Amino acid sequence: MIVDIINKKRMGEELTYQELDYFFNGYLNGEIADYQMSSLLMAICINGMTDEETFALTKLFIDSGDVLDFSDIPGVKIDKHSTGGIGDKTSLIIAPIVAACGGVVIKMSGRGLGYTGGTIDKLESIPGMSIDLSEKELKKQVKNIHLVITGQTGNLVPMDKVIYALRDVTGTVSSIPLIASSVMSKKIASGADKILIDIKVGNGAFLQSKKDAKKLEELMVKIGNFYNREVRCVISDMNVPLGSCIGNSLEVLEAIQILKGEETHNNLVDLCYELSSIMVSMIRNIDEKEARKLVEDSISSLEAYHKFEEMVKAQNGDLSKIKVSNKTMEIKSTKSGIINDINALEIGKLSLALGAGRVKKSDKIDYTVGVKLVKFVGDEVKKGDTLAILYYKNTVPNVSIDTIFNVL
Amino acid sequence: MIVDIINKKRMGEELTYQELDYFFNGYLNGEIADYQMSSLLMAICINGMTDEETFALTKLFIDSGDVLDFSDIPGVKIDKHSTGGIGDKTSLIIAPIVAACGGVVIKMSGRGLGYTGGTIDKLESIPGMSIDLSEKELKKQVKNIHLVITGQTGNLVPMDKVIYALRDVTGTVSSIPLIASSVMSKKIASGADKILIDIKVGNGAFLQSKKDAKKLEELMVKIGNFYNREVRCVISDMNVPLGSCIGNSLEVLEAIQILKGEETHNNLVDLCYELSSIMVSMIRNIDEKEARKLVEDSISSLEAYHKFEEMVKAQNGDLSKIKVSNKTMEIKSTKSGIINDINALEIGKLSLALGAGRVKKSDKIDYTVGVKLVKFVGDEVKKGDTLAILYYKNTVPNVSIDTIFNVL
Repeated sequence: MIVDIINKKRMGEELTYQELDYFFNGYLNGEIADYQMSSLLMAICINGMTDEETFALTKLFIDSGDVLDFSDIPGVKIDKHSTGGIGDKTSLIIAPIVAACGGVVIKMSGRGLGYTGGTIDKLESIPGMSIDLSEKELKKQVKNIHLVITGQTGNLVPMDKVIYALRDVTGTVSSIPLIASSVMSKKIASGADKILIDIKVGNGAFLQSKKDAKKLEELMVKIGNFYNREVRCVISDMNVPLGSCIGNSLEVLEAIQILKGEETHNNLVDLCYELSSIMVSMIRNIDEKEARKLVEDSISSLEAYHKFEEMVKAQNGDLSKIKVSNKTMEIKSTKSGIINDINALEIGKLSLALGAGRVKKSDKIDYTVGVKLVKFVGDEVKKGDTLAILYYKNTVPNVSIDTIFNVL
Repeated sequence: MIVDIINKKRMGEELTYQELDYFFNGYLNGEIADYQMSSLLMAICINGMTDEETFALTKLFIDSGDVLDFSDIPGVKIDKHSTGGIGDKTSLIIAPIVAACGGVVIKMSGRGLGYTGGTIDKLESIPGMSIDLSEKELKKQVKNIHLVITGQTGNLVPMDKVIYALRDVTGTVSSIPLIASSVMSKKIASGADKILIDIKVGNGAFLQSKKDAKKLEELMVKIGNFYNREVRCVISDMNVPLGSCIGNSLEVLEAIQILKGEETHNNLVDLCYELSSIMVSMIRNIDEKEARKLVEDSISSLEAYHKFEEMVKAQNGDLSKIKVSNKTMEIKSTKSGIINDINALEIGKLSLALGAGRVKKSDKIDYTVGVKLVKFVGDEVKKGDTLAILYYKNTVPNVSIDTIFNVL
């Protein structure tokens, strides 16, 4: 039976709900081995899944754990997910903006692994900040201030946790139906009415092509329809880093600058305004232009920043105590010219080498280290100009500037 | 690195010798997990391997263990392999014929699993028969009588053993390059100069289509050329059972009948004569017609049968003590007509249910049980005629005659 199901998918046939149920719940119950699940996952990666199979798998994921219900709290519950990228601190900026504009934002985030940082790790760089709220604390905070960013509450989608851990080490991450069912099951189980997905494409992201991103978008919208959730997607570039900072404390400080309106023009600000406007249009049923106005007002009036402060306070964080390392080193340009490209993936690797991320799950993060870009794509530089500043702890890793900055 | 290699194959790219070496030897050394290997194997099953990858994998398989050397024994060492089938006792018949016709036949065989029986299990139904010869005993017997059928001697191709066990439970058996490298590595490591492969096609075999069998043939001949071994293949039908008996003792008795020339005309005899003639033509460099004459002479002169007796005696077996169960039940036809088909796979299942085979490796075989066909495809039968006789031990399994015999 186990091998028959694997063989069926190997031959490219469609699995029934009963077969997927038998296999995935069998795995969760320990009746099906890791090596059998990874074999099936690889067959799914290569041969794909039909929409019906993807809906079935999403249902199995959701049903494997708790489903949160915020229907007793008034307002439209909206959530946002990004497929991950380097220097992506958009959640820290967008969530307060959307809450300031009338949304109820309940955002459960993960920790980072590899080059891509996790929102929860970034928040933890704020001394005192609680990111493990109980369901009761979560509900109380949502009722009071309409905004929370926390680690996962309750036992949501445990099947996704074990499957994702296996995919990570078996070369079976890059599958559109597997990514779609993983993301959508978590968003649906965490109680959102409306969902915005930011699909990253490029060398610093999971997906490398726009075509794949488009397919993922279509599939996630279909799953949303199936579950009666409004889903919108934005496909955004992840070839250059978002904003200027990479590293936990540095990114929180950058987010605060943007929320205070002190930084109003770079790729990070543009993306945050775009995503916030779509979310505000979704919750208020207004067009994006109108929503954009509300977003800009929330910044200039400092309402968005105050929402952020309210959230940090509610979760016991102390913004005045955020620290960055006092050991810095300037990276200088080795030639004169125009910056043609800044490689997001290479910056991610550098940040990891500095200690800002994890290679293994058990690794400890240093919140105070990171990279701050001083020059950006399109900037003219002279030989010897500072391109970036490294914040380091003990030693500076070997940096090959030319793999990061492409100066022509 | 591990995941990079899996991803490469998932994308359908060619792996280098170094990458295959790293992965397969890493698995053998315990550095790469089962779930990573099964994921790669599934990617290989679906995306295939190039000839260069298959040569590389065959080399890694061979190099993982001992390689036997019989160059000090004069004569052409010839081996024969069948990709397995139901009621396939050809090795028991062909090996003595070819040895009687001047070949040096060193045949290492396996045990059976599932519906297909193993030659070694069949030989073990001869009381006293040793099938675990040491390398020294093996060499002595080869020198003295030019014929041995034994279980595997020495530590041959240990990598194939662990990979095959994993493929068996992960739906990754049906891959032409994986089958080819598994079979050819074992034949080359066991010291043969010339190799005949009997590729079975049909509902009782691994491969279901002639096209796949043809591909497997081409690939095995290429691997043979690469290793300077003459390889010939025969593609033979496995939709109906070979001969009349299925079950260990029953099959040995049937082989003896054929070696004595008492049975000279059925699909089993035809196949044995065909394969033997090809092998004799390979060792003596004569054409198949001439070789066929030598094969027939070896039967009529009883030289082939005496070779078989010599081998059994050398391995301490006692032919006079072979037993079949004295509990029998006749299966009668439920209608009159012509037998249009006898389903080999269903007979295999019945034989397994009687206790003649293993479901799990640890299962014990009952050598005395089995099925003896009385009527064959093309025979006219009347309702109530005996179609087959079951030899059973304690209880008779439920038999649905119509799934086995198709009478029109």
